[in-house]
Amino acid sequence: MEVAQLKTIIRDIPDFPKPGIIFKDITPLLADVEAFQTTVDAFAKRYGDKGIDAVVGIDARGFIFGGALAYRIDAGFVPVRKSGKLPHKTHLVEYDLEYGTDKVEMHIDAVGPNHRVVVVDDLLATGGTAEATCELIEKSGATVVECAFVVELDFLNGREKLKNQEVFSLIHY
Amino acid sequence: MEVAQLKTIIRDIPDFPKPGIIFKDITPLLADVEAFQTTVDAFAKRYGDKGIDAVVGIDARGFIFGGALAYRIDAGFVPVRKSGKLPHKTHLVEYDLEYGTDKVEMHIDAVGPNHRVVVVDDLLATGGTAEATCELIEKSGATVVECAFVVELDFLNGREKLKNQEVFSLIHY
Repeated sequence: MEVAQLKTIIRDIPDFPKPGIIFKDITPLLADVEAFQTTVDAFAKRYGDKGIDAVVGIDARGFIFGGALAYRIDAGFVPVRKSGKLPHKTHLVEYDLEYGTDKVEMHIDAVGPNHRVVVVDDLLATGGTAEATCELIEKSGATVVECAFVVELDFLNGREKLKNQEVFSLIHY
Repeated sequence: MEVAQLKTIIRDIPDFPKPGIIFKDITPLLADVEAFQTTVDAFAKRYGDKGIDAVVGIDARGFIFGGALAYRIDAGFVPVRKSGKLPHKTHLVEYDLEYGTDKVEMHIDAVGPNHRVVVVDDLLATGGTAEATCELIEKSGATVVECAFVVELDFLNGREKLKNQEVFSLIHY
């Protein structure tokens, strides 16, 4: 399967999580062996020779792609989670949502100053979570080589919020 | 690295998530390339020739191991999530916690009657979530070949709650 075909497998769910939003459901892509392999392989091709020490996956769908990618390219895996989920000492970054704020955490010893990491999530929307994740990584002194997404919603300008980072997405809407 | 060595990499966190509980923190195992590879490879060796159509990963740490395993053995990946997270129509199972109840969901079209699946999570504690996950899978008519865990807390008797299922764990406490 080609990367260009992945778009045909992603499902539109109208009015989720709230009225007026069309949710891009990537679960059919996960369930399709060839589509999932194509997705992970596309990331592996891009990052396999970049000296990546760790894949940082964003809770929770970023764990699926990030776990597979880390395995495939012989990197470690580091979870970034919503506040209160990680058991050890953490760095914490608070960021703005449309209404209110949210917080993400990463263990303070998860990555170090000489580490090169790639950030993985399923979807780039407004970019708030990914930007906060990059800030967590930089607090630890590590280098964000790139932020990688399966799907990017171009009209939400997440790339603008991540303007200090390299950004790569397989599929654009 | 041997599976027997994985235990040395898992970290005890006292009093998390509440006083008196010693949390088994698997994030050092994820961050260690060799340990993560050993873990996924051990599952792949066990399930690679069992005709597995889908790996069902339990939200959220089960996504990391499950995603990597699905990729490795050429299976699809299916997420089971806490209530309200999945966008499409779902089966739902409510199950008892120590205090109160919880709910897990799986998309109704995620697996079908001829599918053979393996359930993956990081930890088998009391077994409530895993048992509910098996029930979701059986509602869809699919067959649970086995439930696979990285860590099993033997003293919590999760295996007894899963007595109708095959259960396999890499590490026991």
